[in-house]
Amino acid sequence: MGLTLALIREAHARIKDKIKRTPVLTSATLDAQARARLFFKCENFQKVGAFKARGATNAVFLLSDEEARRGVATHSSGNHAAALARAAALRGIPAHIVMPNNASRAKQAAVARYGGRIVLCEPTLAARESTCARLVADTGAALIHPYDDVRVMAGQGTTAVELLESIPELDLLLCPVGGGGHLSGVAVAGKSLKPSIRIVGVEPAGADDAYRSFKAGHIIPSVNPQTIADGLRSSLGKHTFPEIQRYVDEIVTVSEESIVRAMRTIWEVMKIIIEPSAAVPYAALLEDKLNIADKRVGIILSGGNLDLDTLPWAKPCG
Amino acid sequence: MGLTLALIREAHARIKDKIKRTPVLTSATLDAQARARLFFKCENFQKVGAFKARGATNAVFLLSDEEARRGVATHSSGNHAAALARAAALRGIPAHIVMPNNASRAKQAAVARYGGRIVLCEPTLAARESTCARLVADTGAALIHPYDDVRVMAGQGTTAVELLESIPELDLLLCPVGGGGHLSGVAVAGKSLKPSIRIVGVEPAGADDAYRSFKAGHIIPSVNPQTIADGLRSSLGKHTFPEIQRYVDEIVTVSEESIVRAMRTIWEVMKIIIEPSAAVPYAALLEDKLNIADKRVGIILSGGNLDLDTLPWAKPCG
Repeated sequence: MGLTLALIREAHARIKDKIKRTPVLTSATLDAQARARLFFKCENFQKVGAFKARGATNAVFLLSDEEARRGVATHSSGNHAAALARAAALRGIPAHIVMPNNASRAKQAAVARYGGRIVLCEPTLAARESTCARLVADTGAALIHPYDDVRVMAGQGTTAVELLESIPELDLLLCPVGGGGHLSGVAVAGKSLKPSIRIVGVEPAGADDAYRSFKAGHIIPSVNPQTIADGLRSSLGKHTFPEIQRYVDEIVTVSEESIVRAMRTIWEVMKIIIEPSAAVPYAALLEDKLNIADKRVGIILSGGNLDLDTLPWAKPCG
Repeated sequence: MGLTLALIREAHARIKDKIKRTPVLTSATLDAQARARLFFKCENFQKVGAFKARGATNAVFLLSDEEARRGVATHSSGNHAAALARAAALRGIPAHIVMPNNASRAKQAAVARYGGRIVLCEPTLAARESTCARLVADTGAALIHPYDDVRVMAGQGTTAVELLESIPELDLLLCPVGGGGHLSGVAVAGKSLKPSIRIVGVEPAGADDAYRSFKAGHIIPSVNPQTIADGLRSSLGKHTFPEIQRYVDEIVTVSEESIVRAMRTIWEVMKIIIEPSAAVPYAALLEDKLNIADKRVGIILSGGNLDLDTLPWAKPCG
């Protein structure tokens, strides 16, 4: 079953008291540089520090009471893990989170803070999947995939509903793309609410599976992705890809250098913390990849979680 | 002539279309840690990235047309320099900014971006003052002191007017103190608008001239201040000190370690960039220096300008 605006609107009604309505910020300095009007939707200020709170909360609160009683499970080392743990805690049910045993202490701590039950495994995709499958078999927990799940995609689409409610006159809407959960939701919502809007996915050149899949017309999985944007290393899924094919106008790629420069510019000018993945859409403006002159451009800043010990522009030692 | 609420209200009417009304942010996480309700007034989002835009703009727009024609001057290597340059540009008059010849290129660039005319001098207070005095004599420019000037203090006080308009039920109001321009304005506005409010100045222990002066009842100048909070190294002035004596309830000091920890906590939890000076009030909460249990506490985040190359918690090389 595909994703629809109706499902996204239902998701919004379901989750809106459990998430933040994040602000839309503007910057006269960045507008002047871009010669356009930019509207930044600040999901870095979202609960758990990323848009992932939306989809996880929708999925958890869609479960029947009987399903919910057995809890939820996922394998993730990123924002989805913390988001699922938080949503489960809000519903008062267990969340089993399979994490690789090399996941940083900060990431484990974020999951634990929300009461998630961490199950460590070897740091391979095979070990993560088998550990998670065994856990689901043992507990009867509902598996909530980080992105390739219509319930999750519907939740992520609420970002665009809010942004277009605040700024209905947008001409373009830019969203990062990794597994496509956010982009698919944003594209369905955006195009359904405003057919004239141009939806652009932006992806690191070092993890350009969505760009290549979109061109080829079939999923080309990500192999050995190399990018600082750690939220965008996944491959498109069987639920996200068809929505992206149908509703997205264009996918563009950006260099690592532009991602770092975009992140630093937003920190310096806007005084807000965004993670590398969130800097990717603005990097497309720095590379002058899009025709945005005098247009109104929505830019989704997807999250703000990163290890502040190791900033990408810090001068290397020695 | 002393500072009054009437002067601050006039300042607000004068400048409010030329500055930002900055947001007041809250954090459920920080509230839970503090066991209080915290309201952060975000002057890091102010024009030029600091509250200094308020006072400089008020001073520049208070000049008569004849005075204004000859321009304004100051000596500063910090946020006041950029703020004065911007205010002068808004009025279409020259701003002469004396800066030490070791001022960072970033700080010079900020002044130049707003059209300020930079005059470099030797990096001593004597050279700065004599260069500025000569410049004022040569040009007839109006000297606008960074803080010890009632016009500037009135402008800075508008921060508290806005904060109390947004959150009238505040019990305490915490403000950093360096030369006292901000604290004096905030204290006059806060106490005049709400006599029951407790006004607390917070100062680095390594630059505790305000703390000692407040105790002694006379100005004890700052000698060789040692603090990362570069905006708070100045001494109180003859205009700021009497207002602080009259309207401030308490001055507390905090350690360098607490300042750095406060700054990092606000970055990590709130996802906003603040400079070290702006972290000083929250550091007093981390040190448990104030009785704030269940109280409503206004905290002024005074600015967000710093060199992102050299973060205070970065591990040293080697």
